[in-house]
Amino acid sequence: MPELRKDPIVDRWVIIAKNRAERPLELTEGEPARRTAIADCPFCEGHERETTEEVLAVRTSGTANGPGWRVRVVTNLYPALLPGAGAFAPNAEHLFDAQPARGAHEVVIEHPRHLLGTSDLTVDELTEVLLVYRERLAALRAMNRYRQPIVFKNVGAAAGASIEHAHSQIMALPLVPREIAAELESARRYHQHNRQCIYCQLLADELSSGQRVVYPTVNPAAARFVALSAYAARTPLETWVLPAEHQSDFELLSATGARELAAVMRAVVTKIDSALDRPAYNYIIHTTSFDTYANDHYHWHIEIIPRVTKTAGFEWGTGLAINPVPPEEAAAIMRALHLAG
Amino acid sequence: MPELRKDPIVDRWVIIAKNRAERPLELTEGEPARRTAIADCPFCEGHERETTEEVLAVRTSGTANGPGWRVRVVTNLYPALLPGAGAFAPNAEHLFDAQPARGAHEVVIEHPRHLLGTSDLTVDELTEVLLVYRERLAALRAMNRYRQPIVFKNVGAAAGASIEHAHSQIMALPLVPREIAAELESARRYHQHNRQCIYCQLLADELSSGQRVVYPTVNPAAARFVALSAYAARTPLETWVLPAEHQSDFELLSATGARELAAVMRAVVTKIDSALDRPAYNYIIHTTSFDTYANDHYHWHIEIIPRVTKTAGFEWGTGLAINPVPPEEAAAIMRALHLAG
Repeated sequence: MPELRKDPIVDRWVIIAKNRAERPLELTEGEPARRTAIADCPFCEGHERETTEEVLAVRTSGTANGPGWRVRVVTNLYPALLPGAGAFAPNAEHLFDAQPARGAHEVVIEHPRHLLGTSDLTVDELTEVLLVYRERLAALRAMNRYRQPIVFKNVGAAAGASIEHAHSQIMALPLVPREIAAELESARRYHQHNRQCIYCQLLADELSSGQRVVYPTVNPAAARFVALSAYAARTPLETWVLPAEHQSDFELLSATGARELAAVMRAVVTKIDSALDRPAYNYIIHTTSFDTYANDHYHWHIEIIPRVTKTAGFEWGTGLAINPVPPEEAAAIMRALHLAG
Repeated sequence: MPELRKDPIVDRWVIIAKNRAERPLELTEGEPARRTAIADCPFCEGHERETTEEVLAVRTSGTANGPGWRVRVVTNLYPALLPGAGAFAPNAEHLFDAQPARGAHEVVIEHPRHLLGTSDLTVDELTEVLLVYRERLAALRAMNRYRQPIVFKNVGAAAGASIEHAHSQIMALPLVPREIAAELESARRYHQHNRQCIYCQLLADELSSGQRVVYPTVNPAAARFVALSAYAARTPLETWVLPAEHQSDFELLSATGARELAAVMRAVVTKIDSALDRPAYNYIIHTTSFDTYANDHYHWHIEIIPRVTKTAGFEWGTGLAINPVPPEEAAAIMRALHLAG
């Protein structure tokens, strides 16, 4: 059973998951991205028996756990969290605190064919993936068992991907992890003081200055989504995509919204792929806790993080990143790229 | 001029340092560690003109900026922080806060020959390096200009090293970065409530249970330093080395202490090198802020972090690590390795 352990000194939990050591590491840094034997890929259509049973599939034809799907969700074969009703009951008085790592850990296989990244999907295909995220988040919240969801995608070995085939992951955690807790807490405090969502204020300021806006470049009033070079970007071309209007939870995304979001995400990742020669990257959907669904203070968003710099001893020791590309220059580079759809 | 920028939402500073993009990237992941042309190494003896002027050198012979040194400290040629007296004056009211990145950024060249890691140094050589750290930390504190020092070492591309030749870095920051602030704050709070240093308590508990102790394996009462598999280790074989007796600041290390510390560090890194086949790793010296020198609540220590797992989207988004090796097993592996000196 994987275990959540708290550092004795600081409020930093770690998942100790011995089973994760058994993962097949298909990707190795420094090697070309494309695997030699696609026939071995457990995520390709026709290989459904090599994964766990599907939790959800969007199907054109066929039956569960067989071919005919367009997007498929399975439980991670090497889960960092295991389902179960055991309570998460941390004891702040103990130096040594361990809790069973209860939660959900799902894999979203984004396409039946062996595609690699977000820019390889069509807007329609990516829309379907986003709607699958929404559906799984709603289902996990409805379980009334976990506290915080997170959706993320790893592309390339340097971004932590162990399998090449386009996929993303959804986890539901029994605690609000520290990076998310810091955002939620800061947003709550700002709202208390200013009766305003801090992200809505950020969007207004960024659209008014324009210097870090990646999208839209024309007619901002009509855009449902905004892409920004993050003001304090941790890596070159780190880009945030946010709904233009206040929305606390990714689950509140409409089907029309999903299509426009897919178009913006695909355009942003395609620009990053072009500017940095298909780098490794992560994207992470930041959404509010299950128990604060639909609130006035938090604003869900997606952080897209190219992994072209390394986290060295300085970054590990301080929590500060060093970024050699000023965000204003990053935004100018991204805006200047006009790519065919 | 590099810039410190605060994330608009959370208290996370980033250094935007355009000059860092010009660094020669000698190391690439996936390639064998040893460079082909040592003749080109700017850190090898005889190449002193390829670095900035030396800040400090331990010399057997010769004169400043020439051969004859054993350890040499220079200013980083691509500094993330620049010296200067400009005040660090953050404005918590502003969403967009940027400050000049004032500070020191030094490189400690650990040996005149082209050695690679800590296990390649003799105990005497490593002792000298540790005493150089101590001297530079004292000098930087005496400047009365910066708030927090950090000493760290990157070995291997995956650990963020851009140059192979054994070196480490010392930085003095104008702020207390968030990871260090969390430790200092937690230690202060624990001391307030318990009239006891939290690390001293941790050491007592760990030595009494023994299951995560890497060193000493015999006669704990005589040891000046203790090496532990971290209870909530973030990576396989993450090991902490702490002084057995309370000591808040690395500057308080004695010359005898430095020699014993060097012996323990060298033994630990040699075991890690053996167990993980010379992995990339960082070590980071955590020491108290310049303005809380010699206190009762904090306890300096060294965290040695093998970089054999990747930080993927989950880790970036949550701040939680996933570690496939339980620390008790890590300690058992390390204890079982008996290596020739």
